[in-house]
Amino acid sequence: MVTPEALEDIVGSDWVVTGKEQTAAYKTDATPFALMPEAAENIIVVKPADAQEVSEIMKLANREMTPVYVRGGGTGMAAAVIPTQDGIVLSMERFDKVEEVDRKNLMVVAQAGVTLADLLKAVEAENLLFPPHPGDEGAQVGGLVACNAGGSRAVKFGVIRNYVKGLEVVLPTGEIVTMGGKLLKNNTGLNLMELLVDSEGILGVITKVIFRLYPMFAGMATLVISYDDRHEAIDTVPEILQAGIIPLAIEYMDRDIVDLTAEYLNMTWPAAKGKAYLIIILTGANEDEVYFQAEKVVEVCQKHNAVDTLMTERREEQSAILKIRSEVQSAVSPNADSLDTAVPPAEIGNFMDEVDKIGEKFGVKIYVVGHAADGNLHHVLMKDVADRGLLEPIKDEIYEVAMRLGGAITAEHGIGKKSIYLLDRYTDERQKQIMRDIKKSFDPNNILNPGTAIVP
Amino acid sequence: MVTPEALEDIVGSDWVVTGKEQTAAYKTDATPFALMPEAAENIIVVKPADAQEVSEIMKLANREMTPVYVRGGGTGMAAAVIPTQDGIVLSMERFDKVEEVDRKNLMVVAQAGVTLADLLKAVEAENLLFPPHPGDEGAQVGGLVACNAGGSRAVKFGVIRNYVKGLEVVLPTGEIVTMGGKLLKNNTGLNLMELLVDSEGILGVITKVIFRLYPMFAGMATLVISYDDRHEAIDTVPEILQAGIIPLAIEYMDRDIVDLTAEYLNMTWPAAKGKAYLIIILTGANEDEVYFQAEKVVEVCQKHNAVDTLMTERREEQSAILKIRSEVQSAVSPNADSLDTAVPPAEIGNFMDEVDKIGEKFGVKIYVVGHAADGNLHHVLMKDVADRGLLEPIKDEIYEVAMRLGGAITAEHGIGKKSIYLLDRYTDERQKQIMRDIKKSFDPNNILNPGTAIVP
Repeated sequence: MVTPEALEDIVGSDWVVTGKEQTAAYKTDATPFALMPEAAENIIVVKPADAQEVSEIMKLANREMTPVYVRGGGTGMAAAVIPTQDGIVLSMERFDKVEEVDRKNLMVVAQAGVTLADLLKAVEAENLLFPPHPGDEGAQVGGLVACNAGGSRAVKFGVIRNYVKGLEVVLPTGEIVTMGGKLLKNNTGLNLMELLVDSEGILGVITKVIFRLYPMFAGMATLVISYDDRHEAIDTVPEILQAGIIPLAIEYMDRDIVDLTAEYLNMTWPAAKGKAYLIIILTGANEDEVYFQAEKVVEVCQKHNAVDTLMTERREEQSAILKIRSEVQSAVSPNADSLDTAVPPAEIGNFMDEVDKIGEKFGVKIYVVGHAADGNLHHVLMKDVADRGLLEPIKDEIYEVAMRLGGAITAEHGIGKKSIYLLDRYTDERQKQIMRDIKKSFDPNNILNPGTAIVP
Repeated sequence: MVTPEALEDIVGSDWVVTGKEQTAAYKTDATPFALMPEAAENIIVVKPADAQEVSEIMKLANREMTPVYVRGGGTGMAAAVIPTQDGIVLSMERFDKVEEVDRKNLMVVAQAGVTLADLLKAVEAENLLFPPHPGDEGAQVGGLVACNAGGSRAVKFGVIRNYVKGLEVVLPTGEIVTMGGKLLKNNTGLNLMELLVDSEGILGVITKVIFRLYPMFAGMATLVISYDDRHEAIDTVPEILQAGIIPLAIEYMDRDIVDLTAEYLNMTWPAAKGKAYLIIILTGANEDEVYFQAEKVVEVCQKHNAVDTLMTERREEQSAILKIRSEVQSAVSPNADSLDTAVPPAEIGNFMDEVDKIGEKFGVKIYVVGHAADGNLHHVLMKDVADRGLLEPIKDEIYEVAMRLGGAITAEHGIGKKSIYLLDRYTDERQKQIMRDIKKSFDPNNILNPGTAIVP
């Protein structure tokens, strides 16, 4: 086991933290409390300054066979970062510099500990756009990549994976390697960079990221469409896309969850009528484009009996709407669990119906919010469901339905330490073996984030 | 070694081909002739009907340790499909059905042997769009994925990887597995599907692909911009993007190569003036959007002294322009080599200058064509360069420059059997070892496409 003193020799005594109280904050993340695995007692938090220090820490830990848990913003919802064995928490908080916003290449180079908030600020200051918006802006760049974060604003250009063009990674064995670069096309050998995306901290320590950027759209508007009938809202979604409009985001929210969140944030939801909402973010090269798209969208929505349509182009109003949507997970906390299934986008209506039936059968209220055009729904099960012992049976039935509809158990939150049994249940043995072999090749001593995803 | 009879037992006697003349067509692809590795003598071509038959073939080959080379359209330029050891060529030509164009989910399900031409036809018949356009429409779907094909029309939504949402794969050990589905978000474990993309036939036999589609844009136009000064053309590119216009494609062509290709195809190039051209494909939700974009683009181009700007919205004219661009590689054949470097997009001007200097130093003409906004250039070296013994020294210098500018040795053609020495030269030992381990996990007996990319 690596000692605090040995770590101090690498990073200096200011950057090693021990003690139960001092390390407590490094033992949790945004996973529902009841599903959080127990953290280990003896945790040393170390805060390296650069890749070289990370490399030395990894070499040391690899030699001493000490577990290392990399920690970013701690906003993950799958308990991936929880240190479940005595060892080291490697906090990336000092990797906080946006090294370059490269206008000519439309790329940003950011250290892994830069928060999403700071990344957006730096990019927008150059009048450029980083399209995806995973909910919590306290998330850090390295974590966004390690979890392949999704969130809203992924409809037009996809999830984080699509933006990752280059990585600097420290391997568990200590080598500092680079993958990709400021490159839009790169077919050099098996693509290890794509494997690092969504690797949940088990393959390497991401220290630097190059993301592709887009120009800031001159026109951007947010629509809030109100419906009395949820199914009408859902049926609108594929028709918008088929009409040739690709919004930046199409979000679905139940009224219940909107009210809860607005109250939690002490904010006002702009729509008075309706029981179900679509939030649609439109972008265009100018205002006319956005109006044209908005007209078409409203036409489709009205065909589906929308009871109200609001549109705003004012940036603050748009931000307020996105904020209410993004903070849902915090507002409904402490919840028992927030599921994260994906189904083929056209199946979300069926999926919602089936989950309603499951709720009725068990006599519980199941809230729903989600990324409608992505087929990614979050069903929220409240604490009383767990108290009544119904959490696991309900989840099992929901997952069965999702899989029957051609879905997946996690769309964007990942497996982490929370859902290993589901990965195990729904993945064939041969693919699991390959995943284990890959892990072993990157990390022969299984020191990096043991107990996460496929690792025993 | 597997016998023809054993294969006939699996697929029937009509679908096994032996004999030197009958198998000759299965021993080449679109790689420059002089760089094509020698094919083995004893090749059995087998044409399975479905994944089950592929599975039986793989199990047999794995047991008998017989090499298997999967073959699609044979349009690859890196010799990845050349059977260099005695064994089996697994031709996917009977996997020729587009199983479903799913309008509601905006997905297409195609068997691996469907050609790009047939895929586009099926998709466009439903008024949908499959944006990327790797040059040769004889390429097959499985090959597009195995090579992560790029081509033009990749600026807006990226290369093939971005469209791959699900795969059916037969592993070298015979298991039929599925990865992904009709899903836009999926974070279930290490992403093996992303690893299959650009695996160049060494990890598994792709039998079925699910691609994401887009709505057909109501407005689409192609611009041809003529310049007397190549540098002015190149400098235009980042400014178009920074102005908030994201074309579907921005292609660069030298006049020399345009003339060569137009003549080869017996077609007419629409622009009379100029020595260098940009081809820009614009799309929008209506005609007005396209006009607005075109106006902005022309403004930027004129600032950079464009001598002529043409715009066409007629589909046939647009196709003709794209065809001349797409057939360049055939027109300049037999060439000694067509390089496929990537550099950061803003570096292509510098890169062209440096390659010019290399050409002058060696006293040879180096043609250039490429995907300007992607930073992906193809430098074409003609046969006389090879005859004078200058091919390798010139290539070495070009690669050195590309790497110095932060580039990669292959943007879209891949490593195949042609460029293993380059992968070896420019990849660190640790990453090569991980690639080899991954290969070993998928294919413990190294029977699938041995001698390709990182496999000895």
